[in-house]
Amino acid sequence: MAMEEFRVLNEKSLREYIKATPSLASKLGNQLDNLEIKEVGDGNLNFVYIVISPSGSLVIKQAVPYVRCIGESWPMTKERSYFEATALKRQHGLSPKHVPEVYHFDRTMSLIGMRYVEPPHIILRKGLIAGVEYPLLAEHMAEFMANTLFYTSLLYLTTTEHKSAVAEFCANVELCRLTEQVVFSDPYRISEYNHWTSPYLDSDAEAVRNDKILKLEVAELKSKFCENTQALIHGDLHTGSVMATHSSTQVIDPEFAFYGPMGFDVGAFIGNLFLAYFSQDGHADQGNDRKAYKAWIMDTAADTWNLFHKKFTSLWDIHKDGPGEAYLHEIYNNAELWELVKQKYMINLFHDSLGFAAAKMIRRIVGVAHVEDLESISDPIKRADCERRALDFAKMLLKKRRNFNTINEVISAAQ
Amino acid sequence: MAMEEFRVLNEKSLREYIKATPSLASKLGNQLDNLEIKEVGDGNLNFVYIVISPSGSLVIKQAVPYVRCIGESWPMTKERSYFEATALKRQHGLSPKHVPEVYHFDRTMSLIGMRYVEPPHIILRKGLIAGVEYPLLAEHMAEFMANTLFYTSLLYLTTTEHKSAVAEFCANVELCRLTEQVVFSDPYRISEYNHWTSPYLDSDAEAVRNDKILKLEVAELKSKFCENTQALIHGDLHTGSVMATHSSTQVIDPEFAFYGPMGFDVGAFIGNLFLAYFSQDGHADQGNDRKAYKAWIMDTAADTWNLFHKKFTSLWDIHKDGPGEAYLHEIYNNAELWELVKQKYMINLFHDSLGFAAAKMIRRIVGVAHVEDLESISDPIKRADCERRALDFAKMLLKKRRNFNTINEVISAAQ
Ligand SMILES: Nc1ncnc2c1ncn2[C@@H]1O[C@H](COP(=O)(O)OP(=O)(O)O)[C@@H](O)[C@H]1O
Ligand SMILES: Nc1ncnc2c1ncn2[C@@H]1O[C@H](COP(=O)(O)OP(=O)(O)O)[C@@H](O)[C@H]1O
Ligand SMILES: [Mg+2]
Ligand SMILES: [Mg+2]
Ligand SMILES: [Mg+2]
Ligand SMILES: [Mg+2]
Ligand SMILES: [Mg+2]
Repeated sequence: MAMEEFRVLNEKSLREYIKATPSLASKLGNQLDNLEIKEVGDGNLNFVYIVISPSGSLVIKQAVPYVRCIGESWPMTKERSYFEATALKRQHGLSPKHVPEVYHFDRTMSLIGMRYVEPPHIILRKGLIAGVEYPLLAEHMAEFMANTLFYTSLLYLTTTEHKSAVAEFCANVELCRLTEQVVFSDPYRISEYNHWTSPYLDSDAEAVRNDKILKLEVAELKSKFCENTQALIHGDLHTGSVMATHSSTQVIDPEFAFYGPMGFDVGAFIGNLFLAYFSQDGHADQGNDRKAYKAWIMDTAADTWNLFHKKFTSLWDIHKDGPGEAYLHEIYNNAELWELVKQKYMINLFHDSLGFAAAKMIRRIVGVAHVEDLESISDPIKRADCERRALDFAKMLLKKRRNFNTINEVISAAQ
Repeated sequence: MAMEEFRVLNEKSLREYIKATPSLASKLGNQLDNLEIKEVGDGNLNFVYIVISPSGSLVIKQAVPYVRCIGESWPMTKERSYFEATALKRQHGLSPKHVPEVYHFDRTMSLIGMRYVEPPHIILRKGLIAGVEYPLLAEHMAEFMANTLFYTSLLYLTTTEHKSAVAEFCANVELCRLTEQVVFSDPYRISEYNHWTSPYLDSDAEAVRNDKILKLEVAELKSKFCENTQALIHGDLHTGSVMATHSSTQVIDPEFAFYGPMGFDVGAFIGNLFLAYFSQDGHADQGNDRKAYKAWIMDTAADTWNLFHKKFTSLWDIHKDGPGEAYLHEIYNNAELWELVKQKYMINLFHDSLGFAAAKMIRRIVGVAHVEDLESISDPIKRADCERRALDFAKMLLKKRRNFNTINEVISAAQ
């Protein structure tokens, strides 16, 4: 079916669309008469359909020209779908075990056909709320981040390749602007979109708006977000963009992708683990005090950074005389210097990651979009208590991040 | 004359070209029969013609698809002319008194027609070698840099405008790569292009290649150059890109322009003043020990930074609730916080500027392209002596730049 104009699909028209699209039909074994189609989009922005035939399955994601959870009153370019498809393909190429394959992309329709990440995969955030342990999560996320960030940075790319990719993703500016607003601006000013557990956190929210040092620090992070084209980042790497089982981890939803600071991804993931950690007391009950689970979360945060560090620097070692142009082998081939170079790079990345982790935590407590980890704590006093501890920790982390040398020091400070 | 294909012009074909181009002919009062045409290109890359008629004048600059001073064996995109024209127009718009007006641009021919910066203007570097004082130089350069850098940064632009401009200038990557090679790489490795005053500086050049901390620091600057899209920078702001009289200062030749770190421009200019300073002993003679002139150069370096600081921050104050999205007025409107924000921004910019100044000095002593200030010292022992002092100062500055809080401290260290 030649789609000449964008239109929002429903289950019925999606059926027609699939029939007319060989790359999708074939993934369903061309058995298209009794397709089971279910809209499952629980995200903020887009429509997501699971499509199942007797001999195959896939997922269709369609972007609409507005923010789904708000409606047409908040317009948002559907071109985000192009950047999501482009990033998904690139990330699948770099980390095939942890990113679903793209089967089909239709730019006019802002429509992506991709692998169905089938049950028992669930959204990681839901697993963290339920208290499920994922023994391979840290390993897998470290692998995803090390591969996608290393290979799109100047540690691996020539400046020619890098600048051309930077230019392409500059056009994803509307999504960057959404992040700029909701992460780096709104929490630090009065905004109609902000909310928090009121009245308990009223003075905490006000304190964020009046904290000069905090605002100075968040400005530095915002500048990095807006000006530093370090690597192709996912851009929205919270625990709601990860689907997991005990043995598999899949990263979805990179519509915010662009060339930005690596620490924004690493920080998003670790910051959301910290949010999960601080929410556990709200989910504890007589049968389960969640103590062991809290320890598992923190071990996972530590392992994520430490394994990421290991994998990233070992990719760098492997490719030290590869195409990357940041540190030319002829110049940095002295063993002692090579160690110094890596140490300096990684400690800067660590501090960036902690800063972005903190900024992401703060915005989930006093900004527009909260996280289910905390929102699902029904007793507001209990919730406010968890949130205040998370907020106080995040504020400290944002201001003092440069004083931490290891992730274990950070974790001790949280406990 | 419709030019359908690129061809390198000579004086004869340039005459025809002008006759066929109304925007050029009119600047010459349409008196085209006895045009006086002189090729004056003394730069490394391009051809420059001065064209004079009885009732007007102009300059024609044409890029060729190679590096002029080397020849066709070193190819270089002639598209640089497009970025030069685009930057010239933007910079003329932002600092009209200090940038020649563009009359005409022909992308196919890589040809720019612009105002003739007429005598007594001379290239500043030549004036500095001759010992000429320019009382308004610091004021004018500060004005040029403050205006062109401030208005193209996120202190004034929205992120939408900024990202779109960043993307456009990403295509000037070949020129960026030339800088990456000759400023940030070649001086720190063995390269067929490097040269220095041999044998006197042999061990100094070797020491640069073996200096681990220096190489660690230069890598940080290279990363900023490649990844930080802070503002539209000139990209080649040495004293050979400035034409001056006692009362006028004109900045030409922005073919290296792209969105990069502001400190690269500020540092290029100040670093070249420092090179002029260190070369003075080589130009001293019995009639003139150049002592007073050395003091004037250093005063000019100090005034340049201090006036730049003043103008830049005052533009920022004036536009504090303007379109710029880095520091939103609602968030940073507290007077004490506002001062903190500016202090932090400016000290970072200062340290960047010192670092780039140092890198630019080093590359002019042990890299491929040297400066006439030093090259024109005919006695090699004298020259090597000046060069070594410049080099030692630059190495110290690159490593210790963060210890300096004011430009006067830097100048004391140089003396
Ligand atoms: N490939 C997939 N396989 C299975 N479920 C998916 C897939 N992609 C998305 N989903 C489901 O749809 C939800 C919303 O998808 P997501 O890409 O996060 O959309 P949004 O951009 O609107 O946040 C996810 O939380 C997940 O439950
Ligand atoms: N607009 C102008 N007016 C007068 N002279 C100019 C002008 N532009 C260039 N020149 C002369 O031509 C020389 C080379 O120009 P420049 O733009 O620096 O070329 P290149 O890119 O090859 O370095 C300058 O040093 C200056 O002497
Ligand atoms: Mg999502
Ligand atoms: Mg999304
Ligand atoms: Mg020049
Ligand atoms: Mg030059
Ligand atoms: Mg030039």
